[in-house]
Amino acid sequence: GGVICNPKEMSLGELERLTRRYASEIIDIIGPEKDIPAPDVNTNPQVMAWIMDTFSMNRGYSVPGVVTGKPLVIGGSKGRDQATGRGVSFSALNTLKHLGMNPEDIRVAVQGFGNVGSVAAEILHKEGLNIVALSDIKGGIYNPKGLNPNQVLTHAKESGFVIEFKGADFITNEELLQLNCDVLIPAALENQITGANADRIQARVIVEGANGPTTPDADKILEEKGTLLVPDILANAGGVIVSYLEWVQAMERYFWEKEEVNQKLEGIMKRTFNRVLELSSQKKVSMRMAALMIAIDRVAEAMRVRGLYP
Amino acid sequence: GGVICNPKEMSLGELERLTRRYASEIIDIIGPEKDIPAPDVNTNPQVMAWIMDTFSMNRGYSVPGVVTGKPLVIGGSKGRDQATGRGVSFSALNTLKHLGMNPEDIRVAVQGFGNVGSVAAEILHKEGLNIVALSDIKGGIYNPKGLNPNQVLTHAKESGFVIEFKGADFITNEELLQLNCDVLIPAALENQITGANADRIQARVIVEGANGPTTPDADKILEEKGTLLVPDILANAGGVIVSYLEWVQAMERYFWEKEEVNQKLEGIMKRTFNRVLELSSQKKVSMRMAALMIAIDRVAEAMRVRGLYP
Amino acid sequence: GGVICNPKEMSLGELERLTRRYASEIIDIIGPEKDIPAPDVNTNPQVMAWIMDTFSMNRGYSVPGVVTGKPLVIGGSKGRDQATGRGVSFSALNTLKHLGMNPEDIRVAVQGFGNVGSVAAEILHKEGLNIVALSDIKGGIYNPKGLNPNQVLTHAKESGFVIEFKGADFITNEELLQLNCDVLIPAALENQITGANADRIQARVIVEGANGPTTPDADKILEEKGTLLVPDILANAGGVIVSYLEWVQAMERYFWEKEEVNQKLEGIMKRTFNRVLELSSQKKVSMRMAALMIAIDRVAEAMRVRGLYP
Amino acid sequence: GGVICNPKEMSLGELERLTRRYASEIIDIIGPEKDIPAPDVNTNPQVMAWIMDTFSMNRGYSVPGVVTGKPLVIGGSKGRDQATGRGVSFSALNTLKHLGMNPEDIRVAVQGFGNVGSVAAEILHKEGLNIVALSDIKGGIYNPKGLNPNQVLTHAKESGFVIEFKGADFITNEELLQLNCDVLIPAALENQITGANADRIQARVIVEGANGPTTPDADKILEEKGTLLVPDILANAGGVIVSYLEWVQAMERYFWEKEEVNQKLEGIMKRTFNRVLELSSQKKVSMRMAALMIAIDRVAEAMRVRGLYP
Amino acid sequence: GGVICNPKEMSLGELERLTRRYASEIIDIIGPEKDIPAPDVNTNPQVMAWIMDTFSMNRGYSVPGVVTGKPLVIGGSKGRDQATGRGVSFSALNTLKHLGMNPEDIRVAVQGFGNVGSVAAEILHKEGLNIVALSDIKGGIYNPKGLNPNQVLTHAKESGFVIEFKGADFITNEELLQLNCDVLIPAALENQITGANADRIQARVIVEGANGPTTPDADKILEEKGTLLVPDILANAGGVIVSYLEWVQAMERYFWEKEEVNQKLEGIMKRTFNRVLELSSQKKVSMRMAALMIAIDRVAEAMRVRGLYP
Amino acid sequence: GGVICNPKEMSLGELERLTRRYASEIIDIIGPEKDIPAPDVNTNPQVMAWIMDTFSMNRGYSVPGVVTGKPLVIGGSKGRDQATGRGVSFSALNTLKHLGMNPEDIRVAVQGFGNVGSVAAEILHKEGLNIVALSDIKGGIYNPKGLNPNQVLTHAKESGFVIEFKGADFITNEELLQLNCDVLIPAALENQITGANADRIQARVIVEGANGPTTPDADKILEEKGTLLVPDILANAGGVIVSYLEWVQAMERYFWEKEEVNQKLEGIMKRTFNRVLELSSQKKVSMRMAALMIAIDRVAEAMRVRGLYP
Repeated sequence: GGVICNPKEMSLGELERLTRRYASEIIDIIGPEKDIPAPDVNTNPQVMAWIMDTFSMNRGYSVPGVVTGKPLVIGGSKGRDQATGRGVSFSALNTLKHLGMNPEDIRVAVQGFGNVGSVAAEILHKEGLNIVALSDIKGGIYNPKGLNPNQVLTHAKESGFVIEFKGADFITNEELLQLNCDVLIPAALENQITGANADRIQARVIVEGANGPTTPDADKILEEKGTLLVPDILANAGGVIVSYLEWVQAMERYFWEKEEVNQKLEGIMKRTFNRVLELSSQKKVSMRMAALMIAIDRVAEAMRVRGLYP
Repeated sequence: GGVICNPKEMSLGELERLTRRYASEIIDIIGPEKDIPAPDVNTNPQVMAWIMDTFSMNRGYSVPGVVTGKPLVIGGSKGRDQATGRGVSFSALNTLKHLGMNPEDIRVAVQGFGNVGSVAAEILHKEGLNIVALSDIKGGIYNPKGLNPNQVLTHAKESGFVIEFKGADFITNEELLQLNCDVLIPAALENQITGANADRIQARVIVEGANGPTTPDADKILEEKGTLLVPDILANAGGVIVSYLEWVQAMERYFWEKEEVNQKLEGIMKRTFNRVLELSSQKKVSMRMAALMIAIDRVAEAMRVRGLYP
Repeated sequence: GGVICNPKEMSLGELERLTRRYASEIIDIIGPEKDIPAPDVNTNPQVMAWIMDTFSMNRGYSVPGVVTGKPLVIGGSKGRDQATGRGVSFSALNTLKHLGMNPEDIRVAVQGFGNVGSVAAEILHKEGLNIVALSDIKGGIYNPKGLNPNQVLTHAKESGFVIEFKGADFITNEELLQLNCDVLIPAALENQITGANADRIQARVIVEGANGPTTPDADKILEEKGTLLVPDILANAGGVIVSYLEWVQAMERYFWEKEEVNQKLEGIMKRTFNRVLELSSQKKVSMRMAALMIAIDRVAEAMRVRGLYP
Repeated sequence: GGVICNPKEMSLGELERLTRRYASEIIDIIGPEKDIPAPDVNTNPQVMAWIMDTFSMNRGYSVPGVVTGKPLVIGGSKGRDQATGRGVSFSALNTLKHLGMNPEDIRVAVQGFGNVGSVAAEILHKEGLNIVALSDIKGGIYNPKGLNPNQVLTHAKESGFVIEFKGADFITNEELLQLNCDVLIPAALENQITGANADRIQARVIVEGANGPTTPDADKILEEKGTLLVPDILANAGGVIVSYLEWVQAMERYFWEKEEVNQKLEGIMKRTFNRVLELSSQKKVSMRMAALMIAIDRVAEAMRVRGLYP
Repeated sequence: GGVICNPKEMSLGELERLTRRYASEIIDIIGPEKDIPAPDVNTNPQVMAWIMDTFSMNRGYSVPGVVTGKPLVIGGSKGRDQATGRGVSFSALNTLKHLGMNPEDIRVAVQGFGNVGSVAAEILHKEGLNIVALSDIKGGIYNPKGLNPNQVLTHAKESGFVIEFKGADFITNEELLQLNCDVLIPAALENQITGANADRIQARVIVEGANGPTTPDADKILEEKGTLLVPDILANAGGVIVSYLEWVQAMERYFWEKEEVNQKLEGIMKRTFNRVLELSSQKKVSMRMAALMIAIDRVAEAMRVRGLYP
Repeated sequence: GGVICNPKEMSLGELERLTRRYASEIIDIIGPEKDIPAPDVNTNPQVMAWIMDTFSMNRGYSVPGVVTGKPLVIGGSKGRDQATGRGVSFSALNTLKHLGMNPEDIRVAVQGFGNVGSVAAEILHKEGLNIVALSDIKGGIYNPKGLNPNQVLTHAKESGFVIEFKGADFITNEELLQLNCDVLIPAALENQITGANADRIQARVIVEGANGPTTPDADKILEEKGTLLVPDILANAGGVIVSYLEWVQAMERYFWEKEEVNQKLEGIMKRTFNRVLELSSQKKVSMRMAALMIAIDRVAEAMRVRGLYP
């Protein structure tokens, strides 16, 4: 379900009343034991707080486990805001390790400088990789000697955009995709790598930070070229994983420090990455196909052992 | 409660319907906060899955904590299947450490090569002990220089039984018990060590892997001889302990890697072993008596502080 | 709520019946998800056990999370009894570390030798500090070369009081407060450091083990003098924190060893101490003021994000 | 909600499993306090019994109030099967009384001889009215001197249809509608009286036994002609009303004799009829319009006093 | 509990939000099985509707039984608004019957012309009694030949007050009490008949329509004079009784016609009246004392058989 | 379930604690929607009150519907105490009416003068029948001209037994059974009419007030003789029926006057009597057989329509 409305055109009061009414309508089918909403486009921690409060007032006591993405002060998880970007960077690092590539030799191009792209760039920069290109909606910047994402962030916060960052050349978003680099991280919009440009992608590795940045026909071309693509369902799962960890903390009523959250996130991503990689090489299929096979297999297996009842 | 039937004579459909009906009948008196069934003879993970599903469909959401011994994919615990054998091996190692005996000098005879005996033998073999005898329902094999349980397992899987394993002599199950060895692990049936053969047991240490392998009159003889016997209630508690840990994981909705499960299992077994040993030497009673004293004391103390109400 | 009665004049049977009746009256407004009573003056683990049992019998299954301060055998937390004293000692050690003072050079005076004072003294003694004075209701003892709290405890258990401990001089409780020492721990009654004696306090650091040992006018004098005072709300929170940890363990149904409890307690106290200290120096206010600002701010922030509904 | 299937092509076992599964899916949103399903086309008392049993097994005790239209033996209401036809006859009699017409002078034509038409005809016959025409899917019979519906029923049960009843002339369903009579009861299909034939209807009174037998354009023509039409929402409400009474009996757990059910049904229909009639003449609108005005007004008034919350 | 506020100074929106917040605060301790609020001074059916709606939205389905005094359209009881006045008139008639007095000979004075006084006057007028005096806050009117309460009501609605009713003399409220009449019904404020005027009361019978119109010292004087006083707890219980009947209807989900409500009200009042009268003459105590004795006795007896538990 | 104890040897306090403990043990499987205990030998209204209170305190509000046979003041039904005797007398009267026998000509012998026999005798006496013999454990009295049961009751209350009642001859219990009379009501113990004395029974009609007064071999003899026997399952069902009505009143929270209870009891008994009689003559079986056939048929029919699920 959902509500068709434009929150940007609504007052805070309207948004609160609409959220509470909606939460009341779905109150029987959500709950910490049942279905746990998480934020997505057009919702934010404040909206999740209203849902949590509406549900809790209805039960008569605080139920932090009913939604995730809550503000920290009422039971949100540390590290939740950076989790997707962090997961993207783990995916890139795991891939390089698998390929036996040395981090210091790696040139990375990141399309998109929002919550996902900027966090991933910053972590990879810290790990010693060379961030050669960054971009946002207005276009990108390029410096083959490497950019400092922190400084770019400061610049972007001041000027509104990454372009015109001193000491870097302007490139378009399309040029960024086709740069001569080792790792390409499309972390902006969907449908960026298509049948039209896939054969001009030079990166050895693509890590999908956005949802659906690569079209199915591009997938085929990349696979034939031997590009290693870490699919969105795996690469950008960090946010959903920390939502799960936020729920676990709410069930335990014990809240972890940021380090513990990040370490658990990393553990889960690494194990999953390895399992996908293993099936991929074993069955000679792309990582995207392997990830889907594992996912469907687990659901099917769970349904098989539980049976259909009544 | 229970159902009088022979599952081996029933179709899978009959077994499922019977299990679901039975689960429905006891639905008011089981639950993750109340009473948590665990598998025993003639049930298996599939049966536990049906109980879990029946209970969950009744509540309207998944309740993994209602039973243990479930398949992994719906919330079972890693390490559950090997837990009893692992616990038996911990018990043996703890005992040797207590006696100051060096693992490499130890000769072990294991009666029974099912889930308990084979796992225990394998772990002790890895720890450097000398497995001199193994057996199953058809009889046993003996090699004073040591057997490799892994190889025996491969042989048994192929031929159906441990006998005729190359490079070992045939012995009867009765002979196995009376072998010249340091540690004897009866992990087959009950009533193996009796008043009739107890005085011919040569092992310095007995670790009960089976339920009730030693009769009360044998207990007395062994105690007088100075044999150190680790009783079943302590030695083979590993399965029940990991059932408890499976329940804890279901309550937290957070599932541990196998290493963490094994480490927690080992911690619990070690603390309990030491407490039993301490009381045993303090009160000058057998370890069996000491274990029972501790168990009864804890229940009695809990009842005393809670009181009888109403 | 509460019951006006004098438990010392009641038989155990009367106390049990009264406790169960009271628990029944408040049964709708307590519960592991709602409001969790903890012990205070005139209640003890036995009383908490009766509340737990009454609530549990009402629900039809054991609910260890409904109260804290329970006996260990029915779900109490290891380390609960020493938690307040332990927290006081952490506070003192954190303060010294912040001030860059070397433990071995520190002279400590502790007023009050009950559960809080004696535990704090013992831990600080073990950490190498010099316990120069201890006292109880009858008066105190003083030895500038240091006292061994363990020995004083043995003496006090035998004789009933700390005075007349061999190798120490008698001092009054009032004199103790004004001793020449580095750290003063008032762990007895409220209103000990007042406008009348505050300017004669020589300690550089005061750690409030009792509730409200310092009056508001004394606070002002000490602040002007530059005495660093760790307020009760922070310094003696250890008991409440371990009550919280006891509740967490009850929710998980997994119980930690004493070391883990203490380590978690220390983690929470250290993080809180640092946050209070930081705000204190940043806003140029006393630690008491800073602690209250943080506390009120968190509640206010939680209320703001949840909103008032309905 | 609903299930797209053809029960006539399903085995009884398939129908039971489908019904139970469907009931399980909607179990959270039905219940005696919430939403109470009642039978309609393609369901029958057996289906309602399965829903009742599925819901009851889920709660752990019998919940007769969760559905209506159940078999008598598990809490169905006496008089439920005849309720719609009985309500139609009440409506006709109330109308005649209002118009001051003498029952003995009245000629009635009934289209449709199913559960509604046959019961209505029989009751009106007993009350002394003259049933001049009856019909079913194959066509009708006509005798201006009157027919005995009981005898027609016997004939129809034997031969399958009402036609060829001795002592009556054959007429088509269309001819029946246009007969020279006082009361016309369309109790078969929808859209029988249309803009094409409405001006040829001779009856002074139309009582809608079927759902929607009259089209909106026919409504207009009849209104202009001065025909008094008792709309379906009022005239054939008997079944729904006794479903309500079945629910009331289930809530009380006290079951009424048939006489009491019929008397309560009559009371409700008479009060409603009079209220509709009154508003109709007061506002100079058709009875259909008046009935809708009352219905909408009650819902609106209830919503107004309750308010929209949250 | 209650809310300190002046609803007359609040907007409808403020009143609604306050009511819903208050209802939410007490939601755990009210309910159709527990405690059922009823309207009193400063609340009205609209307020009860908001409470009903708040509680119902919280449960997820309509719960008409949670409050009484609701608007008819959401489950209020017919006859609820007139119930107190009707009960007062029953009390008067029962008393006269007991005294063997002929209704036609009776002169009645009614102080107060609100919901209670006007309804009682009207019913007694219909029963043939002679209403000689009526009053409201501005004063009263007197006509020894009798007044028609309906006409007075029409006059009062137009002019705002009963005074200046044509064909009647003005009297003060105090004079009304002391009129030469047979039945006096104080249905206005408390403390009207006091030690100061009790000996000047001429009525043979007093029926208390208001709460507490007679002071304890007046009670004593009246008892000595032989005035028969029907106490408020009995005489004006009609409103509370129909609140009870509204709750019964909500539990059954079956709603009675006004005649049935009134008949049940009359049955309950008559039985209670007779029981009080009987005890009064048997024990030689006033009816007020007898009513209290019965009430306390029933509560005591119920507590005695249930016992104090836990 | 049940408790093996002798309440006559227990103090009231012991009995209360035992009852409350037992009620707590079965609390999950009783309840107004589930299983409703009723009193039987060795329990009384006080015991039922304790069960009701224990259950209610557990739920947090009064639940009168959880047991029947409660004291009136907490929701017991009027007429409950006399219900069995009243039902026996209805059975006798219904039988006589069926046989076309005139009440005034009927001679009745009643064995047993407890709650059942004395109430039945009194009602039949009021209806004009001739009570010729009454008895209790010590023996009986006989007067062919008729006895007044009220006077016998007064005598029995004074002297302890019915024998030595003035104006009647002594007879043994055995002689009573074989008296020359029309209606015999065995209302004492089981196994009174046996193969040994059945052929000497002279009564035309036997109405079983006790449970099982007639043995199966006596049944056969009586059937052959043409004696009309109203079996216990029908004749003495009055108590159980009013227990049912007590439950209905508790569900409605509306309590009926004694007349209404008796009238409903009579309605149920008459309808059931007629149905049994009809089946008995239709199938040419005894009334006992017919009653069992109807009972089993209803349960079987309910199970058939509900089905076995899961």
